[in-house]
Amino acid sequence: MRNTDAPKILLAHGDGGLLSDELIRKTILPHLAKEMPSELNDAARLELSSKSICFTTDSYVVKPLFFNGGDIGKLAVCGTVNDLAVSGARPLALSLSFIIETGLEIELFEKILESIKKAAEENEISIVTGDTKTVEAGAADKIFINTAGIGIRLGEADLGFSKIRAGDKVLLSGTIGDHGMTIISQREGIKFETEMNSDCAGIAKLTCKLLESIKGIKFMRDPTRGGLAATLNEISKQTGLSIEIDQNLISINPTVQAAADVLGLDVLGVANEGKFVAIVSAESADDCVKICRQHPLGKEASIIGTILETQDVPVVEMITKIGGRRIVQMPYGLELPRIC
Amino acid sequence: MRNTDAPKILLAHGDGGLLSDELIRKTILPHLAKEMPSELNDAARLELSSKSICFTTDSYVVKPLFFNGGDIGKLAVCGTVNDLAVSGARPLALSLSFIIETGLEIELFEKILESIKKAAEENEISIVTGDTKTVEAGAADKIFINTAGIGIRLGEADLGFSKIRAGDKVLLSGTIGDHGMTIISQREGIKFETEMNSDCAGIAKLTCKLLESIKGIKFMRDPTRGGLAATLNEISKQTGLSIEIDQNLISINPTVQAAADVLGLDVLGVANEGKFVAIVSAESADDCVKICRQHPLGKEASIIGTILETQDVPVVEMITKIGGRRIVQMPYGLELPRIC
Repeated sequence: MRNTDAPKILLAHGDGGLLSDELIRKTILPHLAKEMPSELNDAARLELSSKSICFTTDSYVVKPLFFNGGDIGKLAVCGTVNDLAVSGARPLALSLSFIIETGLEIELFEKILESIKKAAEENEISIVTGDTKTVEAGAADKIFINTAGIGIRLGEADLGFSKIRAGDKVLLSGTIGDHGMTIISQREGIKFETEMNSDCAGIAKLTCKLLESIKGIKFMRDPTRGGLAATLNEISKQTGLSIEIDQNLISINPTVQAAADVLGLDVLGVANEGKFVAIVSAESADDCVKICRQHPLGKEASIIGTILETQDVPVVEMITKIGGRRIVQMPYGLELPRIC
Repeated sequence: MRNTDAPKILLAHGDGGLLSDELIRKTILPHLAKEMPSELNDAARLELSSKSICFTTDSYVVKPLFFNGGDIGKLAVCGTVNDLAVSGARPLALSLSFIIETGLEIELFEKILESIKKAAEENEISIVTGDTKTVEAGAADKIFINTAGIGIRLGEADLGFSKIRAGDKVLLSGTIGDHGMTIISQREGIKFETEMNSDCAGIAKLTCKLLESIKGIKFMRDPTRGGLAATLNEISKQTGLSIEIDQNLISINPTVQAAADVLGLDVLGVANEGKFVAIVSAESADDCVKICRQHPLGKEASIIGTILETQDVPVVEMITKIGGRRIVQMPYGLELPRIC
């Protein structure tokens, strides 16, 4: 039974007065700060190890807030870590900003804070600055989180669409569709015999290892919204090159595939939150796979395709399981709202 | 009459597919990017001029979206610029993240984008990375914006509560209460003979000038939520010192005062969005005021009080206009929701 007397977020918790101060000092900081900062300043001061950085941001509006394999807090850390990772950077510092609907139970908020703390520790990124705003009941859906991240660029990494050439190989770090299908199934209340889990995880340790070990990495991206289909189509569009992938080489968790079939979705267009696609030189492809498979998040990594010269217009084409060919289109959208 | 057929934001605009791509390339980037970036990457790459930076974030949920003197877009740029400014940094780069409720008119969104562009130009800060999420109707209130900012620390600036000593002076850069009273009056539909305007503005050019010219600046803060009262109480709490201010020396726009009187609010606790409080050495106080008054945003700057040794417990005390004394308390909150 729900305890209606449980402490809740009030509008006044976001007003910059005594209650805001209390929420920050007694609820947020004890969860997040290893040592309580002696001064709460308007901005964090950072002394970087290099002048060459990456900077990114994402807002998280995922529904439901808690799902198999993760929650909005873990996602808010990992998602931004991953954007830095695939840009060729080592994640360093994170900002953390909450928009909270009045009435959110503080206990729930604390669960999210704990999850953020754990994810930040696992990903070796520090939360250095933050903000909390409250809005009246009905003006937001429980809680939205924004994170922005700073990462130090790895000297070895010089990634970009412009590096990609025909003959390069397409590396995929693991199974696809886990995150999106988990969210949509839980939201729609569809149960399957085997439980699905979001792949929500920070991939920076693996990408850094890869970039530091191998010279032939041209480009990386995490196939989140729009999934593998969107990522490959973006690569094709930006390079003017075509891509051929082989369906037999793409790992899909059988429950994820079954769920997608039930809901009429194409797994290729479904979001991932702990995977990356890399375009690598043909010579380095085997070494890349080897390094990935040594890491828990890359155990099912494989080369799934090749970059090709364009004949007519740039296309992404898939050789299907039965040997046919199919164009993989850019998803139009709308299928899976509030997936991250 | 409202055109109900006007193009609106759809859920699919945030899904990472074709419509998302179209919104970014055809609506957002043409407004914001001086030159269209050739590559849309997961993170921006920055080459900094120094390893010593400040990093901050704020979410903006102001209601109404447009108000006299500004709008949520201008506020989202200036607010984050100001947090960098009072931390002793020169603003360099901004991230920009939208959470948009389905049904928002694209024309309205474009007005906000134009305002963001103008504010970024005026404040000489580049928008380098961003994100757009959509949520279903009723799950947010039209649009929320998050910005995170990176600034380069000025070599001259070493600001902090720990630098503050008894005898130091309290500098206030201008009138107080303008932003908060403008918002609350417009929201409540209260009209006054003279129009009020938010003071929403970026103060970094002035603070950088000040820090580069004068050695004796100990601490700065922008008195936003909780107003001057919250800022002074925070200083007193963190330093253990008391503060005495003189009501006669605090500039308040007469309409702002009248509005506060009507609504029963204490202007000292009302938010500002283009002002700063600085604690400066007694010797440098006159020079600080002089430099401020040469700048359009500091024309009404003055020394409003002094840091004092604490007798019993640290307090903020105000000598009232008629010569009495009054304790200025930390605002409890709740009076002015969604002010920024």
